[in-house]
Amino acid sequence: MRGEIIAIGDELTTGRILNSTSCFAAARLFAAGYKVPVLTTISDDLELISENLLQALARSDFVIVTGGLGTTSDDLTNEAVSAALARPATLYPEILRKIQAHSEHLSPRARASLEKLAWLPDGAHALHSEAKSAGYFLVHQGKPVFFLPGVPHEMRELMVEAVLPRLAVWDGKPTRRVRQRVYRVSGPGEAEINQCLADLEARDERAKIGYYPVSPEVQVSLTISAASGAEADALLADFDGEIRRRLGQDIYGLEEESLEEVVGELCRQRNLRLAVAESCSGGLIAAAVTRVPGSSAYFLGGVVAYSNLLKEKLLGVAGETLAAHGAVSAEVATEMAAGVRRASGADIALSATGIAGPDGGSEEKPVGTVYIGLAAAGGVRAELFTFNGKRGQIQEATAHRALDLLRRYLLSTQDSRPTGEKHG
Amino acid sequence: MRGEIIAIGDELTTGRILNSTSCFAAARLFAAGYKVPVLTTISDDLELISENLLQALARSDFVIVTGGLGTTSDDLTNEAVSAALARPATLYPEILRKIQAHSEHLSPRARASLEKLAWLPDGAHALHSEAKSAGYFLVHQGKPVFFLPGVPHEMRELMVEAVLPRLAVWDGKPTRRVRQRVYRVSGPGEAEINQCLADLEARDERAKIGYYPVSPEVQVSLTISAASGAEADALLADFDGEIRRRLGQDIYGLEEESLEEVVGELCRQRNLRLAVAESCSGGLIAAAVTRVPGSSAYFLGGVVAYSNLLKEKLLGVAGETLAAHGAVSAEVATEMAAGVRRASGADIALSATGIAGPDGGSEEKPVGTVYIGLAAAGGVRAELFTFNGKRGQIQEATAHRALDLLRRYLLSTQDSRPTGEKHG
Repeated sequence: MRGEIIAIGDELTTGRILNSTSCFAAARLFAAGYKVPVLTTISDDLELISENLLQALARSDFVIVTGGLGTTSDDLTNEAVSAALARPATLYPEILRKIQAHSEHLSPRARASLEKLAWLPDGAHALHSEAKSAGYFLVHQGKPVFFLPGVPHEMRELMVEAVLPRLAVWDGKPTRRVRQRVYRVSGPGEAEINQCLADLEARDERAKIGYYPVSPEVQVSLTISAASGAEADALLADFDGEIRRRLGQDIYGLEEESLEEVVGELCRQRNLRLAVAESCSGGLIAAAVTRVPGSSAYFLGGVVAYSNLLKEKLLGVAGETLAAHGAVSAEVATEMAAGVRRASGADIALSATGIAGPDGGSEEKPVGTVYIGLAAAGGVRAELFTFNGKRGQIQEATAHRALDLLRRYLLSTQDSRPTGEKHG
Repeated sequence: MRGEIIAIGDELTTGRILNSTSCFAAARLFAAGYKVPVLTTISDDLELISENLLQALARSDFVIVTGGLGTTSDDLTNEAVSAALARPATLYPEILRKIQAHSEHLSPRARASLEKLAWLPDGAHALHSEAKSAGYFLVHQGKPVFFLPGVPHEMRELMVEAVLPRLAVWDGKPTRRVRQRVYRVSGPGEAEINQCLADLEARDERAKIGYYPVSPEVQVSLTISAASGAEADALLADFDGEIRRRLGQDIYGLEEESLEEVVGELCRQRNLRLAVAESCSGGLIAAAVTRVPGSSAYFLGGVVAYSNLLKEKLLGVAGETLAAHGAVSAEVATEMAAGVRRASGADIALSATGIAGPDGGSEEKPVGTVYIGLAAAGGVRAELFTFNGKRGQIQEATAHRALDLLRRYLLSTQDSRPTGEKHG
């Protein structure tokens, strides 16, 4: 089935808000095997909403509309739907009852404003069983049309729990079976990876390889489209094996797997406790590590030693080292890593010190110069990196590379294949 | 002038990558007074690209196309443009020469692949003076059409430095003058702010107020559209004054101003040095503070005391306090703030301890329970917050509220108006 997604809102067409809801819907639909070749974003305009809704209905098997369902004065979607599809606004008492049931703690004014959510176009069916978020669907000219709130977490919940299940029973027999795998690659650039894999794609027209730099990493996608599920699975296994063989340890994970999850899992498996000492990354390594639920099992914490004062006081970096080599040096990176490992009692520690810019660079140490340190029972070492980009990019790249350095270190202490073999 | 933006790429229509480039282009065009009511995202499909380009050209005064200009095998935009606009691919020797000049450090294979970038549809003019990024424009049937790379930072640079200036001279006399102001509001929710401002919008049809919850804050936009610049400026001043009077200190900043910039500026003005002690926010407060260039002038650093061990060792939180009240308590938050202030020698310190989930909640202290502490020369205090959402949302909300607490504290020590007056 072919679908379309229409996102509504001046906040989107004027670029004030990034449209993450269409992206989420597109990803879920793609993963479920639907084709969504066109996503449209339009402003809060009655005529445009009507026009685009009718156009999408004419050329698609289903339509998903997000945004403009709220209670404020700039929410116009329902009005536009009523006009375009000739479905007058109707009060749904059951929805109103549910809304009132879970809004008892609100002020009378706030409760009154929620009543608007119970007035929907004729033929609408609420998507949330308790009406805790706006959102409904209706069948128009035999096609399902879904209306979801623009608030990302509400939209996501309804997409997964209400839209996909309804589409799945709607659509009996998809003509092609699609399989997709996304490889998260850390280290080589897009062009290098492309060269490494370019001949693979030419092998079979049912396989497609895409390259997406999402700084500081590159995502490589493998998409298989075949006549049957079994055929698709066999092709996927074949291409997947070849891609893994060629990219080796440069692949840190798959799909939505994050580097911090992979590193966390490695720490957990080996029962290692981690600490960090950050200067230029300003807390981003710790923030990444602690994004992972359950990270307290292996993450002790660390020090954001942004000033030299804290590098000395909390990490025990020697004043002489700072004076002799400067805060951005391999020597200070190693003392930071060793210092936080000692202070925290961790098994393994990462450190980062560098120049994120825009000021502070010199000819010898330009903006983007970063030393990443790693301390473990076996000793401590530091590596020099040079990152490009703006301050935020350099900070993100620092945190990413520090975690990747740790990942490769942990893999190397388990797996003794020389890294030179990684490209097969 | 009315424009359209078309973003091309399977990575966008399959939801693998969030489309930030269209958002950026829309924001800049809106700020410059152009109307962009429709943004379209389409897959890497020759026919779809042609069809959408022709459709957009027919109904708009200018078109901006992003993506598909690279050197890899899935980059199809130029081919589609050549076909749709009947402009055969042509080798531009001057562009080739420039590309070769800045790619001398690359391998012969990588250099050869770059040659593709010098083959453009007939009539194209490169946008980057040194051809350091792909991107060109052409005039088709009297309308300017811009083709920009999909790589965000390259696209942004060309948008600002090459597209907007060309559009500005293209368009002699816009019919309406637009002014916009975005207020960043921390504290009250969308519905509360809407109620506070709802009557204002009804006053004048030339003014429009929008409400955009961007968790954990709400952005309020004021848009004025008037016949002349002077009229627009006068209306803006009028409505701006009223909005500021009503929302008071709940407005923390304007436009792209971030909370961490505002807080940083307050610290700088008062010559205060800041330190942080974070548990559940895992480094996000420090990361936010250090996103700001020059933050080393007022930020010393801090401790991510994720484990109780580090709360005791590095912050001097008493073991008895942890045992008696638990790590998530007002008592521990105050000892953390006081501890990092003492250990770092900072003038002012923030702390945060809470339950980000998904595990660790209890009936007494459910997931989302967070204590934020603030220590200054005058003493130390902690406040209890309850945040909703998933782990990441709770962590982000914690960091945001901690900085907002500091902002309000710094404003209160300067400005003695009781906060009860803030809603006028």
